[in-house]
Amino acid sequence: MAKHDALPLVVLTEQFAKLPGIGMKSAARLAYHIMSMDEEDVAAFAQALLNARQTVHYCRCCENLTEQELCPICDDPSRDSSVVCVVESPKDIAAFERTGEYKGLYHVLHGLISPLRGIMPDDLRIRSLLERVRKGGIEEVIMATNPTVEGDATASYLSQLLKPLGVSVTRLAFGLPVGGALEYADEVTLYRALENRNQM
Amino acid sequence: MAKHDALPLVVLTEQFAKLPGIGMKSAARLAYHIMSMDEEDVAAFAQALLNARQTVHYCRCCENLTEQELCPICDDPSRDSSVVCVVESPKDIAAFERTGEYKGLYHVLHGLISPLRGIMPDDLRIRSLLERVRKGGIEEVIMATNPTVEGDATASYLSQLLKPLGVSVTRLAFGLPVGGALEYADEVTLYRALENRNQM
Repeated sequence: MAKHDALPLVVLTEQFAKLPGIGMKSAARLAYHIMSMDEEDVAAFAQALLNARQTVHYCRCCENLTEQELCPICDDPSRDSSVVCVVESPKDIAAFERTGEYKGLYHVLHGLISPLRGIMPDDLRIRSLLERVRKGGIEEVIMATNPTVEGDATASYLSQLLKPLGVSVTRLAFGLPVGGALEYADEVTLYRALENRNQM
Repeated sequence: MAKHDALPLVVLTEQFAKLPGIGMKSAARLAYHIMSMDEEDVAAFAQALLNARQTVHYCRCCENLTEQELCPICDDPSRDSSVVCVVESPKDIAAFERTGEYKGLYHVLHGLISPLRGIMPDDLRIRSLLERVRKGGIEEVIMATNPTVEGDATASYLSQLLKPLGVSVTRLAFGLPVGGALEYADEVTLYRALENRNQM
């Protein structure tokens, strides 16, 4: 966008460019696209932004995003409340739910500890997790953070805080992805698969 | 986004996914990002969308996007109104203005003729271009559509309409990009560069 562009377009481009993964060129393209949309469609988009931000908040129990005080999962009496799966973000819950196998509850950290990026334990939803465990009724906490340096570090940190509270703390298994070819597996994955081998 | 997500988030994701170049996964990521933004920032974004769509419209003369009746370029008496450069979209004007060399006016088609994608001449701002030329005062029309099949076809089509009106119709030169290496030039570009060679 150059100085010859109309100011509201420049402002809109800057707004798009603030979003993650959208650079100035993509932002300009999106802003021009908005100009070609019907006015009602743009109004619907703006309303969707406001609605989502205003009506969606964090579940009082698991910190997942929800419109209610409790999210549908915490509110479901058929779920096993003795198991809590700790994930980085609400997206991860969707992935677990797709398997259809997990019947326990979740806890969303909303980030991973990353000193390099200035994200410290206090920035995450750790206090509410400890409170849930202290309240009792939870037997196992599954660490389901990503298998990255930050995910592993966060899992270790939480494990040290949780173990003294008398719960079993487990970590997702690492190994070969199902359907993957052995020859394409990276060394670390293969090493972990070997280390965690099971009796047949 | 799965059925476990709050509805307003699903709606927002669908809105993002309607934008060009944004798939469902990116749209979900953007929607989650909106949730982590300050409420005022989201309101500013929504307002920018509405503002841009409502206050920006087409220049009465050249069809560029502007907040005024005439865009700043058409409204500038120091520009040479005898030359009109025909471009596909408002973005292209910014590119020409960056050169600082072009002093004429523009005309924005808002697309290229593309029967395969259902874009016919009537969908473009061609009528207003012909009216401008008929009104008189224009000596040269420069076709500055992209060097693609659709850009070339649109330029040829317009040229046939414009020539009978007694104006000179020119096309941007094709050749080697300045600073480019000959060995990396594709055959068509090199052929055009050879064909259009100049006396030294």
